[in-house]
Amino acid sequence: MLLVTFSTDGPPRLGVQRESDIVDVAALSPDAPTSLWDVVRGDAADAVTALLSGPIPESALHPIDAVRLHAPLRPGKIVGVGLNYTEHVTESARALDTAQELPQKPVLFCKPSTAVIGPGEAIEHNAALTSQLDWECELAVVIGRTAKRVTPERALDHVFGYSIVNDISARDQRRAGLWFYSKGQDTFAPFGPAIRTADEIPDPHALDLSLRVNGEVRQKSSTRYMLFRIPELIADISAGITLEPGDVIATGTPSGVGAGMSPQQWLWPGDVVEATVQHIGTLRNPVVDVR
Amino acid sequence: MLLVTFSTDGPPRLGVQRESDIVDVAALSPDAPTSLWDVVRGDAADAVTALLSGPIPESALHPIDAVRLHAPLRPGKIVGVGLNYTEHVTESARALDTAQELPQKPVLFCKPSTAVIGPGEAIEHNAALTSQLDWECELAVVIGRTAKRVTPERALDHVFGYSIVNDISARDQRRAGLWFYSKGQDTFAPFGPAIRTADEIPDPHALDLSLRVNGEVRQKSSTRYMLFRIPELIADISAGITLEPGDVIATGTPSGVGAGMSPQQWLWPGDVVEATVQHIGTLRNPVVDVR
Repeated sequence: MLLVTFSTDGPPRLGVQRESDIVDVAALSPDAPTSLWDVVRGDAADAVTALLSGPIPESALHPIDAVRLHAPLRPGKIVGVGLNYTEHVTESARALDTAQELPQKPVLFCKPSTAVIGPGEAIEHNAALTSQLDWECELAVVIGRTAKRVTPERALDHVFGYSIVNDISARDQRRAGLWFYSKGQDTFAPFGPAIRTADEIPDPHALDLSLRVNGEVRQKSSTRYMLFRIPELIADISAGITLEPGDVIATGTPSGVGAGMSPQQWLWPGDVVEATVQHIGTLRNPVVDVR
Repeated sequence: MLLVTFSTDGPPRLGVQRESDIVDVAALSPDAPTSLWDVVRGDAADAVTALLSGPIPESALHPIDAVRLHAPLRPGKIVGVGLNYTEHVTESARALDTAQELPQKPVLFCKPSTAVIGPGEAIEHNAALTSQLDWECELAVVIGRTAKRVTPERALDHVFGYSIVNDISARDQRRAGLWFYSKGQDTFAPFGPAIRTADEIPDPHALDLSLRVNGEVRQKSSTRYMLFRIPELIADISAGITLEPGDVIATGTPSGVGAGMSPQQWLWPGDVVEATVQHIGTLRNPVVDVR
């Protein structure tokens, strides 16, 4: 299933995207889960599948163009993985003073939940803070079951599904080499537009991903080039840090970030960024001036 | 007021510490807030003060030795400030490869809510991950009102109160210079034992703080030596990152961490760490082996 959080004129609620329609799950049964968060926390994807196998009244269908999509949920935390694609390690070493060698362990950082925005929402460009606003298209892993010290072999049992995070950075706001303030600011974690449940992604390491700025392709790669793969990431993180339902791992970005271009390119007010991952969709966000 | 989260035989609930007693606030009125989280989110400290000014039945009092204290609340995020005391900058440059110069901007990192434990709870020592477990006593600022782009002049209006965070680090788990995995692990954010409301801390930059390991003093300083003071920290962070009610700023540690000692000293299973901040209390945690 492709699960979304959508609204028409009321509060955001759970939907299932099918072709060009959104099914309003709450309209199918008084017992249906009403939010994607409830589905993830309650391990209730099967219940939604069962509801969808029954009759779907016309009144529960909305054309996708007639609804507003929101971030699928508000994660408790987003664990980011830096330098997780070979060619990005190279461009980053050249442009951002990181090491030339491939990392021996996953390079981890965090983005707080306050950084999350949904599809269509504005990435804030604050010229008082940055003139180096950059993009990073990433496959997002949404945790479904609490993971603490799981083995790589069991790691994927803890995955609810997959989505997209655009890991926005103000490259000039690293502090003493730390990335939190450069990557953790409000609106720097566009997330969505949907979560594809794990049962429909048999191999998360065979997904094309790409990113366009104002229609021009900047990143184009495949998750097959990840250095540390998802089972290793979950095992490594959860060795020390409990992953809870709704937490997200942003699995790193391929080459093609603005810092790595010659000359360097940055995001400016008026730009539109589109991050696409195969089988999930396209996460589109405008950049706006918020000085 | 000195607010705590405590339990006897039931679930944790809101208490007010007075001398050697805890007042069970929920026992004072059916309308009383039942959790410290509710007080912070609901901006309801005045309501608790009003309840306490009335008669307090014997049945609402518990000797402090007869209750269990918990972390005051589970913050949405903890924003940590690195290198925020001059002498700690010096010892850190010598021992931990950080810069010798004083930082020009606050050095920010984050600890996730999954790292939080309460007073008395165990700091996990996992020998598979670290042989350099270190302590850091810090004044914790608990946010009471949402702060987004506040000025230093208005910053303290957003503070609910003050507490203690022991910013535990596995120094050998920095990854590519990033601190998230070294500081973000489970149990690495002991928090408590209480929150002193801001009205009772007229000057948060005049508080003695100290830390003992197995009774021996390791850190002893005063918040007057902070490089970036609390109004500047709130203004700087909130310029980019919204601070929400219940969020915590760990304002940095003075010198005397284990990494800075000669020879270096680390925490080991069986150790007991006590972090003390004047007018708040002592946060005591044992270290246990969890291999």
